[in-house]
Amino acid sequence: MAELRLETTAIPGLVVLHLPVHEDSRGWFKENWQREKMVGLGLPDFGPVQNNMSFNAHRGATRGIHTEPWDKFVSVATGRVFAAWVDMREGETFGATHHVEVGPDVAVFVPRGVGNSYQALEDGTVYSYLVNDHWRPGQAYPALNLADESAAIPWPIPLAEAEISEKDLANPVLADVTPMAPKKT
Amino acid sequence: MAELRLETTAIPGLVVLHLPVHEDSRGWFKENWQREKMVGLGLPDFGPVQNNMSFNAHRGATRGIHTEPWDKFVSVATGRVFAAWVDMREGETFGATHHVEVGPDVAVFVPRGVGNSYQALEDGTVYSYLVNDHWRPGQAYPALNLADESAAIPWPIPLAEAEISEKDLANPVLADVTPMAPKKT
Ligand SMILES: Cc1cn([C@H]2C[C@H](O)[C@@H](COP(=O)(O)OP(=O)(O)O[C@H]3O[C@H](CO)[C@@H](O)[C@H](O)[C@H]3O)O2)c(=O)[nH]c1=O
Ligand SMILES: Cc1cn([C@H]2C[C@H](O)[C@@H](COP(=O)(O)OP(=O)(O)O[C@H]3O[C@H](CO)[C@@H](O)[C@H](O)[C@H]3O)O2)c(=O)[nH]c1=O
Repeated sequence: MAELRLETTAIPGLVVLHLPVHEDSRGWFKENWQREKMVGLGLPDFGPVQNNMSFNAHRGATRGIHTEPWDKFVSVATGRVFAAWVDMREGETFGATHHVEVGPDVAVFVPRGVGNSYQALEDGTVYSYLVNDHWRPGQAYPALNLADESAAIPWPIPLAEAEISEKDLANPVLADVTPMAPKKT
Repeated sequence: MAELRLETTAIPGLVVLHLPVHEDSRGWFKENWQREKMVGLGLPDFGPVQNNMSFNAHRGATRGIHTEPWDKFVSVATGRVFAAWVDMREGETFGATHHVEVGPDVAVFVPRGVGNSYQALEDGTVYSYLVNDHWRPGQAYPALNLADESAAIPWPIPLAEAEISEKDLANPVLADVTPMAPKKT
């Protein structure tokens, strides 16, 4: 079984975590998020206030690319996703991208201001994430079109065959996104 | 869609939550845990430090009955469980039980000192929970036998046909459990 391991990426603050998964005759068990161990390895001390789950009935369901003014700790409970991020923060790395396949043995820390998206690779995939601020209905945040040509995310399933929400189909291209300013402190 | 609703039980502090589940063409979305709304409805202000997930390959996998010195916020990501609790705290309600079927639209707050257990009702069920203290390897806490005759949990799948860990098969009966003392403050 693999040790807990953190990996940095081309997007500053976006961290990919490799999680130990304990298998036995019943199935498996994982510490999906463990504050002390992960902070010990260099993850920011993340205090979640909300846990969201989204169920994707079919392979191909695609959600994103969403930027909110809070951090996210994302993972899958079952199934597998192709996950992709686009840096939407003001500054030199605006527009930088990263992608990775996420099964139950991977989690990703997505810092505030980085656009988040994924495509389900299996029917019945459940995506679960923790956030450190509360979502409120009616607030709009910068979102980027899944098909944006400058980000050019290599979706395994062509977007023409993907299930996408009306809202996400209407998201603008990168040139029309207002970069997210740093948090006021 | 149901409103978020909390329900008290015969075990003091054990709260069953009914969660709104937003369905659409992609699948569904739920706020599995939402600190502000839930505290507003009376849930203790729970600050998780760890998120665990357990995958149960087959209907019948049964885990418990485990008591630890921390609170748990339990739910399922996919599938369905029969979940049961036994009060193992010192005092008048020692031995009191509660059970409920938990699908994606239910979550349960399990206070410190209440024994926790569940049986998967579907193949591929994923159970997810948040806890407000860190588990450490090698620590033993009071556990109760799944087959205890005084608790008499009405498991839908007979335990003789259930997948149970070696550790759980060795748990003692209620008469041999040392009740959990209140937290030192
Ligand atoms: C984010 C959020 C959404 N909702 C409601 C609003 C909708 O009725 C329903 C689905 O929301 P949508 O925004 O379409 O869900 P989805 O496309 O999966 O996007 C969400 O999940 C994404 C990751 O999956 C995040 O990056 C987005 O910020 C978040 O909005 O759930 C809530 O009730 N609470 C929430 O926190
Ligand atoms: C609880 C816990 C366990 N483990 C490891 C120890 C084992 O190698 C493996 C499975 O642990 P078990 O204790 O057999 O898992 P399980 O029977 O599902 O019981 C756990 O999950 C139960 C709920 O499912 C809790 O009520 C128990 O307290 C908890 O121990 O995971 C961790 O690495 N971290 C943990 O936090």
